[in-house]
Amino acid sequence: MVVHTDYLFFNTKKRQEFVRITDEIASIVKTSGVKEGMVLVSAMHITSGVFVNDWEEGLIEDFQVWLEKLAPSGLDYHHHQTGEDNADAHLKRTIMGHQVMLPITDGKLDLGPWEQVFYAEFDGRRKKRVIVKVLGR
Amino acid sequence: MVVHTDYLFFNTKKRQEFVRITDEIASIVKTSGVKEGMVLVSAMHITSGVFVNDWEEGLIEDFQVWLEKLAPSGLDYHHHQTGEDNADAHLKRTIMGHQVMLPITDGKLDLGPWEQVFYAEFDGRRKKRVIVKVLGR
Amino acid sequence: MVVHTDYLFFNTKKRQEFVRITDEIASIVKTSGVKEGMVLVSAMHITSGVFVNDWEEGLIEDFQVWLEKLAPSGLDYHHHQTGEDNADAHLKRTIMGHQVMLPITDGKLDLGPWEQVFYAEFDGRRKKRVIVKVLGR
Repeated sequence: MVVHTDYLFFNTKKRQEFVRITDEIASIVKTSGVKEGMVLVSAMHITSGVFVNDWEEGLIEDFQVWLEKLAPSGLDYHHHQTGEDNADAHLKRTIMGHQVMLPITDGKLDLGPWEQVFYAEFDGRRKKRVIVKVLGR
Repeated sequence: MVVHTDYLFFNTKKRQEFVRITDEIASIVKTSGVKEGMVLVSAMHITSGVFVNDWEEGLIEDFQVWLEKLAPSGLDYHHHQTGEDNADAHLKRTIMGHQVMLPITDGKLDLGPWEQVFYAEFDGRRKKRVIVKVLGR
Repeated sequence: MVVHTDYLFFNTKKRQEFVRITDEIASIVKTSGVKEGMVLVSAMHITSGVFVNDWEEGLIEDFQVWLEKLAPSGLDYHHHQTGEDNADAHLKRTIMGHQVMLPITDGKLDLGPWEQVFYAEFDGRRKKRVIVKVLGR
């Protein structure tokens, strides 16, 4: 049984930004040598997430407009009494999800034709981390 | 360590449809021979999802009404400039979740009394796939 | 390969309540003896969830206000024709997520500085259960 751990680091220029990480995950899986198993990809911060969806710029814009509608920034959140201004980032990441588990078959990510993995930053311009943990044989 | 992989195929008659798959997953777990472990059930398409909730027709209708309210179809989404008309399906599946991990204890799915697994189709009438990956001993 | 299973029990005083369970999970991981692997933490009921976010009372209040807005209680849900009155609890738990998978590195939960694990109850005042399944070596 193999367990292989790695981390990805982010420091986005914009406060809110989606970064495609499929290739980075595939590369870590290759390094792990795991032929059959799974890989956990999980944000280690609570204002960012990880999700699987389409790599299409229009849809990415739709996601961001939609999230702003469901979880608006700039409201008078209780959390802001602590001096923070990012309550909406906590809510937005909750909708997108904070982690995914990707299947590995024959040494490769076993994804459908349109599945792409994204890191979703909602409070960027600072160093953030994602854990990538491969488990299998 | 056992890793056993299978796939479920769907081609729903309606564009939006929830299909119960608990028994299919249980059967794959049995075939795998795994006594202690977990099974990943993950949609391989980005307009469908997999979730655990109640097997009650009224609630399933509530889910669909609710999703239409939170992520309406028919809006002028950016994604539709590509010729697609299914942006809402991407959003709806994001709310429902695209995958679940189910525990296996004593050779069986270790679910609570009301937990049922569903495939959630939001852009059906075409062939779709779900990966089922069992991992354990 | 080690697979270790435990259960947490809840019976909250309030109908809706978030309970921090990070220490309980850490303790089960320690008992399992697993040094490298993952732990699944999953609600066994369909009106409660498990999520990772900030341990800050103001934000917890923000979450509850926000969930009530996105998935209001007291509406005339179809599910209520069965005699139930908790359709909103099913919807709320869907937004928060029903499970998480936590990485284990060097025998400990490998969490970011602000990551805390919570049990999210949306239909409490009754006995509920969460499965905790550790898998690794």
